[in-house]
Amino acid sequence: MSQPTTATKPDTVVSTLIDAWNRHDMEAHTALFHPDADFVNVIGMRMRGRTEIDKMHAHLHRTIFRNSVLRSEGHTVRFLSPTIALVHVNWEMTGAEGLPGWDPGAIRHGLMTWVLVAEDGRWLITAAHNTDIVPIAMPK
Amino acid sequence: MSQPTTATKPDTVVSTLIDAWNRHDMEAHTALFHPDADFVNVIGMRMRGRTEIDKMHAHLHRTIFRNSVLRSEGHTVRFLSPTIALVHVNWEMTGAEGLPGWDPGAIRHGLMTWVLVAEDGRWLITAAHNTDIVPIAMPK
Repeated sequence: MSQPTTATKPDTVVSTLIDAWNRHDMEAHTALFHPDADFVNVIGMRMRGRTEIDKMHAHLHRTIFRNSVLRSEGHTVRFLSPTIALVHVNWEMTGAEGLPGWDPGAIRHGLMTWVLVAEDGRWLITAAHNTDIVPIAMPK
Repeated sequence: MSQPTTATKPDTVVSTLIDAWNRHDMEAHTALFHPDADFVNVIGMRMRGRTEIDKMHAHLHRTIFRNSVLRSEGHTVRFLSPTIALVHVNWEMTGAEGLPGWDPGAIRHGLMTWVLVAEDGRWLITAAHNTDIVPIAMPK
């Protein structure tokens, strides 16, 4: 697959989003999403459109995520076309608080799927789906 | 966005997959995935490629999902290009068994994100990410 002609690479979105998250700068976080973006969070809640994504994350970063720290544990990129890319991000989070059953001292691990689209020379997230990694044994 | 020139619509993949699931016909299930497909399941386990997806689902349909029944509660389709489409499927499952904390009589609800690509006139799943919908209260 040929390389896209954007100024940046999809990888940049990973580092930019994590920087925005850890500064709790939701304006910078929201700016990484396409206006039509879908976002499914770890409890299966679907946000439709950048406005809903912004509202939810602004609320979460005033509450349970206000002291959270996000870190990448590695990501992969696969191009579906020169302007559409799939990104999988393994992440670690510390400092989350307040949800039932969550220990604020616990380290969360998860895996996020993103679909990125290149528009006007930059990559935007148009679909995100996030899941906590739950260490349970598979059935025999 | 112009309509793709495939013989079928992305919607067909939803009904075909559910039919295959409920017949526990993993050959038909696997045939709906692209050779390069990524699949992230509800516990954050990532399968890479159709062969891994096949192996895992064959195992699950011999064990915890052997009597499971999957049903769509509605889906949406958004085209990213004439040959790439995003599908979100709300699903209900009954009859799953055996995982810790799961009541086999319980009704599970979840939400799946799919990225479909059209190749040789048919739609294939090239990325799937699945999450149980967990009814917890959001922080105030």
